[in-house]
Amino acid sequence: MAKLVFSLCFLLFSGCCFAFSSREQPQQNECQIQKLNALKPDNRIESEGGFIETWNPNNKPFQCAGVALSRCTLNRNALRRPSYTNGPQEIYIQQGKGIFGMIYPGCPSTFEEPQQPQQRGQSSRPQDRHQKIYNFREGDLIAVPTGVAWWMYNNEDTPVVAVSIIDTNSLENQLDQMPRRFYLAGNQEQEFLKYQQQQQGGSQSQKGKQQEEENEGSNILSGFAPEFLKEAFGVNMQIVRNLQGENEEEDSGAIVTVKGGLRVTAPAMRKPQQEEDDDDEEEQPQCVETDKGCQRQSKRSRNGIDETICTMRLRQNIGQNSSPDIYNPQAGSITTATSLDFPALWLLKLSAQYGSLRKNAMFVPHYTLNANSIIYALNGRALVQVVNCNGERVFDGELQEGGVLIVPQNFAVAAKSQSDNFEYVSFKTNDRPSIGNLAGANSLLNALPEEVIQHTFNLKSQQARQVKNNNPFSFLVPPQESQRRAVA
Amino acid sequence: MAKLVFSLCFLLFSGCCFAFSSREQPQQNECQIQKLNALKPDNRIESEGGFIETWNPNNKPFQCAGVALSRCTLNRNALRRPSYTNGPQEIYIQQGKGIFGMIYPGCPSTFEEPQQPQQRGQSSRPQDRHQKIYNFREGDLIAVPTGVAWWMYNNEDTPVVAVSIIDTNSLENQLDQMPRRFYLAGNQEQEFLKYQQQQQGGSQSQKGKQQEEENEGSNILSGFAPEFLKEAFGVNMQIVRNLQGENEEEDSGAIVTVKGGLRVTAPAMRKPQQEEDDDDEEEQPQCVETDKGCQRQSKRSRNGIDETICTMRLRQNIGQNSSPDIYNPQAGSITTATSLDFPALWLLKLSAQYGSLRKNAMFVPHYTLNANSIIYALNGRALVQVVNCNGERVFDGELQEGGVLIVPQNFAVAAKSQSDNFEYVSFKTNDRPSIGNLAGANSLLNALPEEVIQHTFNLKSQQARQVKNNNPFSFLVPPQESQRRAVA
Amino acid sequence: MAKLVFSLCFLLFSGCCFAFSSREQPQQNECQIQKLNALKPDNRIESEGGFIETWNPNNKPFQCAGVALSRCTLNRNALRRPSYTNGPQEIYIQQGKGIFGMIYPGCPSTFEEPQQPQQRGQSSRPQDRHQKIYNFREGDLIAVPTGVAWWMYNNEDTPVVAVSIIDTNSLENQLDQMPRRFYLAGNQEQEFLKYQQQQQGGSQSQKGKQQEEENEGSNILSGFAPEFLKEAFGVNMQIVRNLQGENEEEDSGAIVTVKGGLRVTAPAMRKPQQEEDDDDEEEQPQCVETDKGCQRQSKRSRNGIDETICTMRLRQNIGQNSSPDIYNPQAGSITTATSLDFPALWLLKLSAQYGSLRKNAMFVPHYTLNANSIIYALNGRALVQVVNCNGERVFDGELQEGGVLIVPQNFAVAAKSQSDNFEYVSFKTNDRPSIGNLAGANSLLNALPEEVIQHTFNLKSQQARQVKNNNPFSFLVPPQESQRRAVA
Repeated sequence: MAKLVFSLCFLLFSGCCFAFSSREQPQQNECQIQKLNALKPDNRIESEGGFIETWNPNNKPFQCAGVALSRCTLNRNALRRPSYTNGPQEIYIQQGKGIFGMIYPGCPSTFEEPQQPQQRGQSSRPQDRHQKIYNFREGDLIAVPTGVAWWMYNNEDTPVVAVSIIDTNSLENQLDQMPRRFYLAGNQEQEFLKYQQQQQGGSQSQKGKQQEEENEGSNILSGFAPEFLKEAFGVNMQIVRNLQGENEEEDSGAIVTVKGGLRVTAPAMRKPQQEEDDDDEEEQPQCVETDKGCQRQSKRSRNGIDETICTMRLRQNIGQNSSPDIYNPQAGSITTATSLDFPALWLLKLSAQYGSLRKNAMFVPHYTLNANSIIYALNGRALVQVVNCNGERVFDGELQEGGVLIVPQNFAVAAKSQSDNFEYVSFKTNDRPSIGNLAGANSLLNALPEEVIQHTFNLKSQQARQVKNNNPFSFLVPPQESQRRAVA
Repeated sequence: MAKLVFSLCFLLFSGCCFAFSSREQPQQNECQIQKLNALKPDNRIESEGGFIETWNPNNKPFQCAGVALSRCTLNRNALRRPSYTNGPQEIYIQQGKGIFGMIYPGCPSTFEEPQQPQQRGQSSRPQDRHQKIYNFREGDLIAVPTGVAWWMYNNEDTPVVAVSIIDTNSLENQLDQMPRRFYLAGNQEQEFLKYQQQQQGGSQSQKGKQQEEENEGSNILSGFAPEFLKEAFGVNMQIVRNLQGENEEEDSGAIVTVKGGLRVTAPAMRKPQQEEDDDDEEEQPQCVETDKGCQRQSKRSRNGIDETICTMRLRQNIGQNSSPDIYNPQAGSITTATSLDFPALWLLKLSAQYGSLRKNAMFVPHYTLNANSIIYALNGRALVQVVNCNGERVFDGELQEGGVLIVPQNFAVAAKSQSDNFEYVSFKTNDRPSIGNLAGANSLLNALPEEVIQHTFNLKSQQARQVKNNNPFSFLVPPQESQRRAVA
Repeated sequence: MAKLVFSLCFLLFSGCCFAFSSREQPQQNECQIQKLNALKPDNRIESEGGFIETWNPNNKPFQCAGVALSRCTLNRNALRRPSYTNGPQEIYIQQGKGIFGMIYPGCPSTFEEPQQPQQRGQSSRPQDRHQKIYNFREGDLIAVPTGVAWWMYNNEDTPVVAVSIIDTNSLENQLDQMPRRFYLAGNQEQEFLKYQQQQQGGSQSQKGKQQEEENEGSNILSGFAPEFLKEAFGVNMQIVRNLQGENEEEDSGAIVTVKGGLRVTAPAMRKPQQEEDDDDEEEQPQCVETDKGCQRQSKRSRNGIDETICTMRLRQNIGQNSSPDIYNPQAGSITTATSLDFPALWLLKLSAQYGSLRKNAMFVPHYTLNANSIIYALNGRALVQVVNCNGERVFDGELQEGGVLIVPQNFAVAAKSQSDNFEYVSFKTNDRPSIGNLAGANSLLNALPEEVIQHTFNLKSQQARQVKNNNPFSFLVPPQESQRRAVA
């Protein structure tokens, strides 16, 4: 709890490192929600090396939350082509491991191949050199700022499943609220174009007329005249056609297969126990806020004011094996990534929460003061109820693996696990979300004077005391059987 | 004046404590206003212990300003039930005194009842303990951040009248621009639901179908299944029904009467002169900004970087008896609360101005550079004129006690008191509003070179000098009789 | 390059001086652009001393970018009357030189006329005293914060041509997204009223009924009752009529001619070589960011935390004769003004880039990560191509002197000069824009691992190496003839 207490304190009144909401509001009435549904993806685009599924961003709850959701599956040796988006992205790795790269314009290429003596004679072939490459694994949260291009590669047999959210209502997006992915390569349609066409009512049909015949690809290089690219890259026309995605087999799509596997200059993959060590290290306090603003305490501070964005940490593990923030062995655990422990989220103005609930354990009724929540069920199933400002139950149903539920800001929500282990990741549209519990220890009702509870709920004094104090658990309530057992 | 000069300087170029506008813009055309009116509340909801009046937030000027206004009247022993809203709130106490509480999630319960020896035997009944309770009195401005629940209680004979504004265009509100109040208790409709229904054209009529029969209340606990609450609170079904507002007398509403009065753990109410002392102390400079950012000078700094939100000061008196910022005994006085002297306003990105104008005194034509103004007349009446960018007089009329006038950003406004004492409070949608006077000392015209005035207004040199210098007063101009008397 | 590298680093992760986007998003679908055009002004309002041209802000690309553009031409001795706008303004001086003034409410009048002994007897005529006056010349960028009134005067024979942008989507604008200019004087229509009427479909026609007959002017003083102004200024009714713009010749408009020239209290105009010195000095680093936040290094730091807004520098030269940030004698040069070297832009959340391209030189395909660009061609002509997220070429044409092209955030753009010298100024809707090049040294493709390029573009290893490394130039590529010559 201490962490959460301080999290809130810092949220609301700390020096330079202050987190305000900086998001666009949804259009008129988009949040007047009387019925929510658990949503499954409604479109799937196959690629050579995997597939991308999307949820319709024009659905009212997504419009209210101002986000677009997609899920990408990469088979062995699959490379997701580099792309950038018109809003910040959070990517959660549901399954698998691999490597990814992000290209920050202006940052130096700091990963260098060793000198290759046998090639010294060929002065035109310098050794390779590129920007930092990162490993990722299940449970990682990856932060991608607006407009920054990234790619991803699966070098294991297990398919990589990555769920990602684009915050289109972010003020960093100066375009309209439609999600857009800009591919640097290939001939595939960007995955959200379909929904854009729906919205426009077919005006996209004139597309053919406006485009030159030679533009057959649909990446951002496809649109330029080949002569421009020839000059800009200093390469021949055959290469230009490849840059424009023209020589492409029709259906390789956004995910291509690298035959024989990708060789890049990067430290060897570490063994599992090393990864754990690495993550533990990452979870050290990065930024300790005092009355003099942000101060670094760890000897090896890895992020923040005294470092540049070029060396910023871009992933943090919040999955099952990470060290939880809230833990009750009979009820479950919650791990959060906010801008306090994962500073890159400060740029995104987003955060995430991973939760795991044991069978029949309950997440008490609560609301998020300053963020929408996009809850994605990773595993198992839970009974969830959501209530709006009029006291209406706008959702009452099961959330199952792969389903998505959007809980708007201030709406109250409670959940009870129906399976042995219900796991979810909840993306939140604020980098320091603040949660108000309605029941249990440290809840709002626990902090009200007894007489206020008594009179506001029309109870007897003894009853008010029960409402305040009967539940000794905060956040997660163990199932009643285990409570009894614990007492006995 | 010095304060205002510095206020602006700090507004625009100070270190970490910088105030930018962080509000949503209104919809298309909402501010193309050719006619304003002084508005009275158009709805009144009776409760057991008082009533709540609201102004229609769908009116064009309210849509332009992006705020919702309401007025709450509490009779003796009336308790306004706890609630929170989807935007920051400013509450001005027009009349009366009492206590209020705010529940910050994560903050400790720091008000503790003394040990009660006679109850030691009953181990199940611990002493009461709750979060901080505040006194309030006439002239207080209370700051309520987004999503933070608060309650209020009148322990005197004089009815409490509280005018409150919700900034629905605040970026802290990630829902749409409709005001929403989430009640923690009771069976009453939230006061802005009516307008939401209007806007939706009756789609709320299916409400009945979607709701379970057992949900008869309309607070945020009403929507949950009773079993959920039973488990979350660890109480029996009878208590759950009360939490859900079911056992409720139909019309107790949002304000209930506490028979015999509310007893809470709080310091005894202070005597008036003590209050004055207290307020004087509060008006000491809290934050002195230097080139090293914010520095504390007062020995007992009560807010800011070196304190947490849990002990933040949440009220400041700007009423008649507070120390004014602008004062002319013949003309009147103006007191402001900005984030410089009331740091909690930094969270809200709102501020307020209290003004008192003597008969026939004038507030010179002026405009607010960076905020909309919502002017609520507390007492008396004044002739007010408002001019838009096309030079059109969009308001020309009397503003009387209880009436509201919205002056959009950059629109010019002037007022002349018609009664012995015209008092108003002006809520402003920026925590450090900057005012540009068009006439008098320190005005824009006073700061222009004489020759620029001469040629831009097509005047003679001598006339331009008169325009610049004839009025020696800034902000408030005494009535001409008193000026003559003062000279004589 | 170093500067740009650091610019980005600071953009994304520096202490108190952090630049986030703080702009409203455009309305739904406004940025779903399939066709852009080079736009010329579509309206011209003649005045006594010059004329004002405007571009229709309701055009889709302007709606997407959220800006309004106008161009003002001042003949010799022409005075542009004081006005303020509902959003921050950037003004670029395309031609000419002169003086301007800005009136900050609350700042002291620091320019004082010397004592005039012959007038000592006339105690009613004090010496003139006004706020700071600034010189400007070709290539200057002038920053005008929201709501701050400014005027401008041409004291040379060469007409002054000033291109200015109002950021109506700025969060500093709390009104709707319509641009509005509030004139302090005169009888002219504000230049954007015409477009407002179009949008409203003629509801402005009732204007006559709502206005009093005496309000014939249309400045912000015109709308007040003459009695108000008489009292506020302490002047007679004849002067009041001038203040209200009533005694005005019909068509003097927003720009009046000062017969005999304007005499203001200001340092004598400097000679050209002095100006250069002055500008060099201004281009010294103002703010060096370290791990302790902003630190001043130059002995004579002129702006920032240790100064007030009253002495803030409000112009910076980025024109042909200023020291460029990117320079290649065969290709051209680029000069930028961001909030790092021109701190006033921090208030505006805007920046600008001046570029000059030699014949057949190319600006490589690139995109702006975090800003829209409004490109105004100053001189010459260039072939420009713009590509959207679907790979469609949405613009393919010549941009000529006086033409405007809007490139939305994240859209890719490339340009090739068709004339001996193509010059442009690009206004950007972020105070620290970040540019990602797609080709050449330091480009995104240059920073990708070779094997990622190979497989993502389906190339051979040798070809991927060419794509990465063949073009050794960043930003600007010299024409191929000169490259060959340089090699030979």
